[in-house]
Amino acid sequence: MATVPILTDEAAGPEARAVFDDIRARRGTDYVNDFWRALANDPALLRATWERLGQVMGPGALDPLVKEMIYIAVSVTNGCSYCAHSHTAAAKARGMTPEMHGELMAVIAMAAQTNALATALQIDPDARFRV
Amino acid sequence: MATVPILTDEAAGPEARAVFDDIRARRGTDYVNDFWRALANDPALLRATWERLGQVMGPGALDPLVKEMIYIAVSVTNGCSYCAHSHTAAAKARGMTPEMHGELMAVIAMAAQTNALATALQIDPDARFRV
Amino acid sequence: MATVPILTDEAAGPEARAVFDDIRARRGTDYVNDFWRALANDPALLRATWERLGQVMGPGALDPLVKEMIYIAVSVTNGCSYCAHSHTAAAKARGMTPEMHGELMAVIAMAAQTNALATALQIDPDARFRV
Amino acid sequence: MATVPILTDEAAGPEARAVFDDIRARRGTDYVNDFWRALANDPALLRATWERLGQVMGPGALDPLVKEMIYIAVSVTNGCSYCAHSHTAAAKARGMTPEMHGELMAVIAMAAQTNALATALQIDPDARFRV
Amino acid sequence: MATVPILTDEAAGPEARAVFDDIRARRGTDYVNDFWRALANDPALLRATWERLGQVMGPGALDPLVKEMIYIAVSVTNGCSYCAHSHTAAAKARGMTPEMHGELMAVIAMAAQTNALATALQIDPDARFRV
Amino acid sequence: MATVPILTDEAAGPEARAVFDDIRARRGTDYVNDFWRALANDPALLRATWERLGQVMGPGALDPLVKEMIYIAVSVTNGCSYCAHSHTAAAKARGMTPEMHGELMAVIAMAAQTNALATALQIDPDARFRV
Repeated sequence: MATVPILTDEAAGPEARAVFDDIRARRGTDYVNDFWRALANDPALLRATWERLGQVMGPGALDPLVKEMIYIAVSVTNGCSYCAHSHTAAAKARGMTPEMHGELMAVIAMAAQTNALATALQIDPDARFRV
Repeated sequence: MATVPILTDEAAGPEARAVFDDIRARRGTDYVNDFWRALANDPALLRATWERLGQVMGPGALDPLVKEMIYIAVSVTNGCSYCAHSHTAAAKARGMTPEMHGELMAVIAMAAQTNALATALQIDPDARFRV
Repeated sequence: MATVPILTDEAAGPEARAVFDDIRARRGTDYVNDFWRALANDPALLRATWERLGQVMGPGALDPLVKEMIYIAVSVTNGCSYCAHSHTAAAKARGMTPEMHGELMAVIAMAAQTNALATALQIDPDARFRV
Repeated sequence: MATVPILTDEAAGPEARAVFDDIRARRGTDYVNDFWRALANDPALLRATWERLGQVMGPGALDPLVKEMIYIAVSVTNGCSYCAHSHTAAAKARGMTPEMHGELMAVIAMAAQTNALATALQIDPDARFRV
Repeated sequence: MATVPILTDEAAGPEARAVFDDIRARRGTDYVNDFWRALANDPALLRATWERLGQVMGPGALDPLVKEMIYIAVSVTNGCSYCAHSHTAAAKARGMTPEMHGELMAVIAMAAQTNALATALQIDPDARFRV
Repeated sequence: MATVPILTDEAAGPEARAVFDDIRARRGTDYVNDFWRALANDPALLRATWERLGQVMGPGALDPLVKEMIYIAVSVTNGCSYCAHSHTAAAKARGMTPEMHGELMAVIAMAAQTNALATALQIDPDARFRV
């Protein structure tokens, strides 16, 4: 139950369908997930989001799997249900093992805990953390 | 300006000082940062937090630097100023280069953006994300 | 599946029913949505919330549709699923077009992205932003 | 006290300086605020962020001032101090009056309040909110 | 450095000053803290907020000190620096001991941790939690 | 639909089953809720979380019911659906009356509202809040 229609290929206009085709080509699958089909209601937003994702998530100084785990960490902290599902699936597809998943969970939980404590106690950053 | 006193070694009781000593020994530095000095007002909370951190952040299936970057991602999303400073410093100490830092920023920003979109559009997770 | 019963008119007491009647009268519809039926478990909270909403969301220096879009922006950022649904419906009822909806999404996503970057980089506000 | 250096024009490389020049040209001012000077540590991130901002915040179906107020609503809910300052200043520069500012505050506070209630009570969206 | 002026008694209009007087009378102190002086820029918002606070925070089924600790828990989780300071001071004034403060911190940190885990793992609520 | 399997007693290994047995013994019920069955995919994380919960939530300077209400306040603010359900059920089991629940809701909503205002207005903490 989304706040916009989830557009099929037929319902999407040519501009959105061109992005769907690019998603299929770059991912090597015929499946286009519903996030993109929802964004297709605004083809310019769809294109800008998809293109930026491609620039950000590819190989670079960080490994793509590491990037997916960072993505999960942000998504969980923002409470995004869809994103927790889609990026956990993506991380598993990129090789995240159950052991890695368990450690990711432990780090996220640890950070949530000390974030709360540091904010509750309103501790000023130590001078030695300065750049 | 914290909501509790930042305890010096002298002001901390023996139970807290023992944790300070363990922090020094495991980190190989004489410096104990203010997060721990604030927690020292409740020695049991100090000990539990420090011990759990040691269990979680050491080497395992994930590299310690990867864990620090995940920690940053959570801390930033929770808006924890102290934690953003302390864990960025820790990640740099563990070898995070400016290139890695830049990519970490880009992934965090990308996730924040698509988290907002997926939540705004209230998209249900695709059936194929099911375990 | 709520944490309190969703009260029908019959189950609600006279104090809550009086608020339901006011909701019906001011909205010109017989339908009372489940948010109010859940709040009806505490009639004083129901009344205070409904009355304040009426004071805040009416015409003033800002247009009611603009207020609804601001409400969506907050609700999405807080990750409130119910509120994203109810206020998107309300904004559409007040005339939000698909083009306006698309731009609202783009601004929310943009802000989420730069919020994350500014927090991650812990940038102090420029002196010239001072009042 | 940022986690990266705030780069002067001299310290920034040519790629970042070109973006600074574009900021100056499009804003009609010589002042480049510290958000951009911090992003300049990663020129590609700087450019991508600045270009997307220009696409999103210009006139369209929504008025630029309305967009700034939506931006404030997101920034406040995310707890971004820098962004609250910079976008409140931007909104005032675009004509936000004290009356409009007061109403913006009231809507943000109202939404925060009902978001908390709807989440606490875990109310399912009404069937009639479906698209 | 606020986004609005912090109004002195002289700068505040008669409507805001009347609320200041009520704050002084009900609190039994001449001091009016800056939150109210900032809200005074919109006297109607000032009055509505102060009056609602008085209705909510007084004695009832819950003890006023318990309410202050709940207030701290929400404020910390929302990352509100001002509120963490003001409500920790208020809780201490109402009798929160260091032991109670320590346990409050531990509960907040515990909840933050399991919140993150439950969200990360996207666990559906058990059927037996249904009302 | 979780991101990990919800493990039955049979599917869980001996280390996780030992924690399940401890949950049963300490709660005096045969029922083990799905949060623990999801964590059982990482027995070390399961054990650490369960043991810490036992240390934190028992009687002390704060009453266990007060702790449950604080837990709800954090969970709601973090937008954790599972946690809102499970801890509201736990609080009711510990004696939270509808009147107490209503006041808890009102305090959470009040705090959310003033948190948003204080953050929006970026008010610095008053000097007298200093420790």
